[in-house]
Amino acid sequence: MHELVAGFPVVLEQYVAWGEMDSFQHLNNVVYFRYFENARIEYLHRMDWFAFQKSTGIGPILASTQARFRRAVTHPDKLLVATRVSALREDRFTMDYRIVSTKLSDVVTLGDGVVVTYSYTEDRKVPIPDELRRRIEQIEGKSLVISH
Amino acid sequence: MHELVAGFPVVLEQYVAWGEMDSFQHLNNVVYFRYFENARIEYLHRMDWFAFQKSTGIGPILASTQARFRRAVTHPDKLLVATRVSALREDRFTMDYRIVSTKLSDVVTLGDGVVVTYSYTEDRKVPIPDELRRRIEQIEGKSLVISH
Amino acid sequence: MHELVAGFPVVLEQYVAWGEMDSFQHLNNVVYFRYFENARIEYLHRMDWFAFQKSTGIGPILASTQARFRRAVTHPDKLLVATRVSALREDRFTMDYRIVSTKLSDVVTLGDGVVVTYSYTEDRKVPIPDELRRRIEQIEGKSLVISH
Amino acid sequence: MHELVAGFPVVLEQYVAWGEMDSFQHLNNVVYFRYFENARIEYLHRMDWFAFQKSTGIGPILASTQARFRRAVTHPDKLLVATRVSALREDRFTMDYRIVSTKLSDVVTLGDGVVVTYSYTEDRKVPIPDELRRRIEQIEGKSLVISH
Repeated sequence: MHELVAGFPVVLEQYVAWGEMDSFQHLNNVVYFRYFENARIEYLHRMDWFAFQKSTGIGPILASTQARFRRAVTHPDKLLVATRVSALREDRFTMDYRIVSTKLSDVVTLGDGVVVTYSYTEDRKVPIPDELRRRIEQIEGKSLVISH
Repeated sequence: MHELVAGFPVVLEQYVAWGEMDSFQHLNNVVYFRYFENARIEYLHRMDWFAFQKSTGIGPILASTQARFRRAVTHPDKLLVATRVSALREDRFTMDYRIVSTKLSDVVTLGDGVVVTYSYTEDRKVPIPDELRRRIEQIEGKSLVISH
Repeated sequence: MHELVAGFPVVLEQYVAWGEMDSFQHLNNVVYFRYFENARIEYLHRMDWFAFQKSTGIGPILASTQARFRRAVTHPDKLLVATRVSALREDRFTMDYRIVSTKLSDVVTLGDGVVVTYSYTEDRKVPIPDELRRRIEQIEGKSLVISH
Repeated sequence: MHELVAGFPVVLEQYVAWGEMDSFQHLNNVVYFRYFENARIEYLHRMDWFAFQKSTGIGPILASTQARFRRAVTHPDKLLVATRVSALREDRFTMDYRIVSTKLSDVVTLGDGVVVTYSYTEDRKVPIPDELRRRIEQIEGKSLVISH
């Protein structure tokens, strides 16, 4: 895998669609958030969270997200959309996103998103279950301290 | 309402978003189908179909749809997205779509969609319930013959 | 390549994004037209049409398109989006689209689109240039008769 | 106009499309950024920036953007998407976004975006032209200090 995504355990290949460019003839800013979502969902699949949610009622909710656009992207291009969990808190964790253009051989976009662990049965935020924390640490290949 | 949508009982106002234009600097073809959907959903709301679905398990499925693009559309523009039910068959009906640009004072796109009445409890297509047919006729202000 | 797309010279692999499903938890109908577009653009790239357009001013315009939805698609799935030119007319040609789900091992959607050859310098439709017809025939691996 | 958008000089009415909900049956997070963009573009129209860009070559580039999601939004709903310029710096300015649900009578999303003033002729960031700053101050109804 590309050195610019070293340290990111989950990396998606993402082809830029022509129709995702806007009339400035660059990839529209909104689309990057779809790409972030694609990587986030892939991470949740690796955690097998959806099966966990079925048995516990605890699911993910995106509380916030942001992006910094460093370079414009154009079709055609193959992007690498990389994500990792960078911080755990009591009832939420932060995922970092990094998008690399293989055409430009450069990081084009950085971002993050905060995911809350939410009990749909109790209708409230809950602490990150130990089981989910272990799965995250397994994917990351290291232990993560919960910060307060 | 505009004379170019005369005869259409359901008409939505739709502002063209800048970001819906593609790199040819025209409204992207895909977006027209979202606009068709918006008008279709509004029609289903007028029929109060979603409540009917809850009590009967019979819902709509889009079986096919098409569009003919007559003139290019650009932001900014306010479109009128008009729809009517033009034909009933045993287990499906056809909705016509017509999109008018108020900037161009012209019909810019024509289309249609075929909606199947589907029983989610029986997992099969079912004849259009009489109740739904009556609601369609009420919206259209005329009786509609089922063609075979 | 999959037997269900045999006879189609251009085939894209397309991963279904989670966020492309709608609240019926199926791939939303609008997205299929984006997938058609992705295959169409790939075909135009194979024709090297964009370079041709720069030197001649003759570009493609989508005049109409349609889809028939045979089976519902859900994330995750890898689709094959196949296209071929099936008919030439004086100033336009028809592209067939076929989408195969590798999860379902079945054809899920069929469609087509009509592309007009348009001179942006003369601002009118023009006959399909011989050069473009030759490129289409080369991709298709057979000669195509222009129907009137 | 609604009291929850008091102090915002530009407010768009935005109807939530059914097809913008995802399979969690809430408005998908990506769509909020399209709504932010719609408000941003409306603000740029009020500034008449596009005409300014034609005569000077200086256009806007979105450098970063973020959103905090406070409450889930569902179709049908009419949102108010409000924006204001909250800070000027040498070569960029910050726009705040606030989205209010008229169904919930509550603020559902907060966000911002940083817009850089970029000279496409000189291919570099440039200081905010005095003319643009005056137009922003006119829209905001107050003077804004450039912070360093």
